[in-house]
Amino acid sequence: MNKITSLFNIRYPIIQGGMVWCSGWRLASAVSNAGGLGLIGSGSMHPETLSEHIRKCKAATDKPFGVNIPLMYPQIDDIMQIVVDEGVRIVFTSAGSPRKWTGWLHERGIMVVHVVSSSLFAKKCEEAGVDAIVAEGFEAGGHNGREETTTLCLVPAVRAITDLPLISAGGIASGAAILAVQSLGADGVQIGTRFALTQESSAHESFKEYCLNLQEGDTQLLLKKLSPTRLVRNAFRSAVEAAEANGAGVEELKVLLSKGRAKQGIFLGDLDEGELEIGQASALLCGKRIQTVSEVMEELIGGYNEALVGLKNIPSSFS
Amino acid sequence: MNKITSLFNIRYPIIQGGMVWCSGWRLASAVSNAGGLGLIGSGSMHPETLSEHIRKCKAATDKPFGVNIPLMYPQIDDIMQIVVDEGVRIVFTSAGSPRKWTGWLHERGIMVVHVVSSSLFAKKCEEAGVDAIVAEGFEAGGHNGREETTTLCLVPAVRAITDLPLISAGGIASGAAILAVQSLGADGVQIGTRFALTQESSAHESFKEYCLNLQEGDTQLLLKKLSPTRLVRNAFRSAVEAAEANGAGVEELKVLLSKGRAKQGIFLGDLDEGELEIGQASALLCGKRIQTVSEVMEELIGGYNEALVGLKNIPSSFS
Repeated sequence: MNKITSLFNIRYPIIQGGMVWCSGWRLASAVSNAGGLGLIGSGSMHPETLSEHIRKCKAATDKPFGVNIPLMYPQIDDIMQIVVDEGVRIVFTSAGSPRKWTGWLHERGIMVVHVVSSSLFAKKCEEAGVDAIVAEGFEAGGHNGREETTTLCLVPAVRAITDLPLISAGGIASGAAILAVQSLGADGVQIGTRFALTQESSAHESFKEYCLNLQEGDTQLLLKKLSPTRLVRNAFRSAVEAAEANGAGVEELKVLLSKGRAKQGIFLGDLDEGELEIGQASALLCGKRIQTVSEVMEELIGGYNEALVGLKNIPSSFS
Repeated sequence: MNKITSLFNIRYPIIQGGMVWCSGWRLASAVSNAGGLGLIGSGSMHPETLSEHIRKCKAATDKPFGVNIPLMYPQIDDIMQIVVDEGVRIVFTSAGSPRKWTGWLHERGIMVVHVVSSSLFAKKCEEAGVDAIVAEGFEAGGHNGREETTTLCLVPAVRAITDLPLISAGGIASGAAILAVQSLGADGVQIGTRFALTQESSAHESFKEYCLNLQEGDTQLLLKKLSPTRLVRNAFRSAVEAAEANGAGVEELKVLLSKGRAKQGIFLGDLDEGELEIGQASALLCGKRIQTVSEVMEELIGGYNEALVGLKNIPSSFS
């Protein structure tokens, strides 16, 4: 047991990130059934779709699971009421102030975890009374912090300012990486990329195959004038890069981005014109096949234990 | 003993990065005397200055030390002849192909280590016959890789393609971080930022003080059209950012950069108009005073051992 496993009453301190177009009830329940904490990603769901996913998730697992809610969600009040009405016990919030909803959710007996990309926001989370913090580094796919602080630098920075249970995210795709962030002070991990590319993820198969064949450098943080986003190279991203290299402003980028690009790419599998979001750690998975959640969990746990034995056996080169 | 300590015949697998305007004989000999491997950074030295620093370093320590040589150095032939003539036994090369000089240096009995930012280049290093590889992540100060791969993602990528002794660089400023990269497969570390800000560093005191008061996000990777460089926020960087936001091309950036900016900032202490280079890990040192090399080494070793005990004691949450 550690801070994270006891907080959520789960077996392994591994949380599956609630990702747009990937994290439906199928993925979340599979992760929870395998001993981690599955999260339904509400960011890409209509309110009624979220209700349906929560119900199906409850039917598919008797283990704890949660819902991720980006706070800039347009119908945020509806979404919050749904998680209450459906009896969800754990909510991960992101992309907004933790001050707004934490008390409201707590009053309704719901645990709140907030995602941050800086120690400054981690401090605000603590002040807002959250139950745990996810510190997400520059390596993460999709929306990202302006500070560009990597997981290696972010975990100790957040650890230094709070004793709250700390979940490290961004760049973690192996058991050895889990051990590495534990060395830095994290209690658990949130893994996105690895789970986005499993059989249970609702992403399009073409997207999964494409992301399992990326090289180092194939994801880059762009759209910094708008909202920094880690994108996979494709025709759409080339258009973004060309516009940015020519000094495109916010309005021009918004037109280029248009609506529904992420759905088009991730869910519908349009690899050319869709917006493809995945983490930098995808390059470490190059050549892998699309695995099941339970295979991924086994690899993570096996890899963690192997790395731990390795560390315990290293000669005391620092004595 | 591990692969790195036995390769260089040093006590701790800690290498001090050879940094422009910081790493003279004083810093290199202090690190070597403290049990690490000090490197003289030739990148900011005239050939005759390098000779002088090598001689002074030999007089100041009887321990092994090395010289870092950026391969795009204009008088590269002179520099290489100097390290041979002065009896240097260890050379770290960077910013160029390892194919060019490795054999030549080996024939003269000199060990060669090459710095890379991708597994692709690490493979080329192995083919060129280098003795060890430095894998430098996105967190590092100054010149940086185009792939923007962070240390957390880079170390396992390089480890996967080579069994050579592997030195991890970028974002490492604590003993816990050393342990973290060991978990990922590194044998040793190269530390820049931490040593650049010691008393023995030849950087200007104002630069050191300024860099010991940075927040997360205060260093950013810019100049990507030219050569990606991690810069500290100041008036000069604001000018670079404004130019880039307006779509400035290579020529315009070259004019803006001009000559001698790094010396102006780091060595002469012009915090407004100089080019200030430091790693992202500087934010983790915020508020520290300017320490001696031996204090830094003690903290690194103490922190490493503390983190190792912590890991050994963690409950087997993955069993």
